[in-house]
Amino acid sequence: MSRVYRLLEPGPVVMVTTAQKEQKNVMTMSWHTMMEFEPPLIGCVISNGDYTFNILKATKECVIAIPTVELAAKVVRVGNTSGRDIDKFKTFGLTAIPASQVRAPLIGECYANLECRVADMALVSKYNFFVLEVLKAWIDPAQKDPKTIHHRGKGVFMVAGDTIRLPSKMK
Amino acid sequence: MSRVYRLLEPGPVVMVTTAQKEQKNVMTMSWHTMMEFEPPLIGCVISNGDYTFNILKATKECVIAIPTVELAAKVVRVGNTSGRDIDKFKTFGLTAIPASQVRAPLIGECYANLECRVADMALVSKYNFFVLEVLKAWIDPAQKDPKTIHHRGKGVFMVAGDTIRLPSKMK
Repeated sequence: MSRVYRLLEPGPVVMVTTAQKEQKNVMTMSWHTMMEFEPPLIGCVISNGDYTFNILKATKECVIAIPTVELAAKVVRVGNTSGRDIDKFKTFGLTAIPASQVRAPLIGECYANLECRVADMALVSKYNFFVLEVLKAWIDPAQKDPKTIHHRGKGVFMVAGDTIRLPSKMK
Repeated sequence: MSRVYRLLEPGPVVMVTTAQKEQKNVMTMSWHTMMEFEPPLIGCVISNGDYTFNILKATKECVIAIPTVELAAKVVRVGNTSGRDIDKFKTFGLTAIPASQVRAPLIGECYANLECRVADMALVSKYNFFVLEVLKAWIDPAQKDPKTIHHRGKGVFMVAGDTIRLPSKMK
C-alpha cells in the first residue's frame, strides 16, 4: 500500500468505476493527485454533471483503474459517452471483475486497479473534489513496462516515455 | 488562462517558489491536480515539514514553475535540500525573475510559470492541501516540444514520450 503513490503520481489518465443496485458504470478522469502515502489518499475532481457524481456520493465507493496506451481508444470512448445512455462495459468490451472491498468493479484490461472508499467530502459542494482512501491495490505483474497516457487537452495525449534515475532523497 | 490545465493535467514534476521579506525559496512538488478550468484552480499538497509551508500560509502567494528534462538534475537537487539551510536559487544557478502579480519569483529556466495566490485553506490543517488560483501564466514560446518529467518514486522519473491524438470530446 505504501507504494500506491508510484502509480498515480506521474499523472496518468484513469478510469473510475462505480456500482449502484445492479448497474455499474465507468468514466474517464485525469484531475487527481496523491494526498497521503499510507494509508494512500487520493484527491480527485468528478464533475457534478457526470453520471458518476451522484452514485459516488451515495455509495461512497469506487475503483480507480489505470489503463495503458493499448486501451487509449476505449478510454476516449468511455470519456465521450454517459452511463445515463449506455452500459459502457458492454458497449466497449471492458471486463468487470468483482472487487474485494467495494461493490464497484475492477477493470480486467487495466494494469492496475485501486479499490477506494470516499474518505472526505468537505470540498465536494464547492469544487466537486472527493478525497478517496485506497483500501486495496491490484497490479498485473505480467505488464512489465506499462505505458500510461497523460491528457494534454482536447484529445491530445502524451504517452509515457523513457525512464531516468537521479539521486533523489524524495520518497 | 483557459488553457492552463493543459500544462498541469499530464502530471509533471513542478517547482514552487515563494518569497518572504528579502528571502526567496524554491521546492520540488508533484502532488497537484487541476480543480477548475477558468479561473484555473490548482490543488496541491505541500508538507508542513517543508520550509515553504509556513511561508505560503503567511504570504498566500507562490509561483508554480514547470521544468523540462534538461533541468532534471537541478530539480532533484532542489528537492533534496531545504531553504532553511541554503539559498537554492544561488546554489543551483536558477534565475529568479520578478513576477507581475505576486512577490514569489518566476524561474527563468522553466518553460512555463504560473503566478498563484492561495484561494482556499480549508483542507490545509487536515491534509496540507492548498487550493491555488492562477493569476497569470507565462510560457516560453521558444520551447516547441517541452519534455516534462513525471515522478515514479525514489528518484525514478518518466520523461514525456510520444504524442497521440484521439477523437475526444473532453475539453
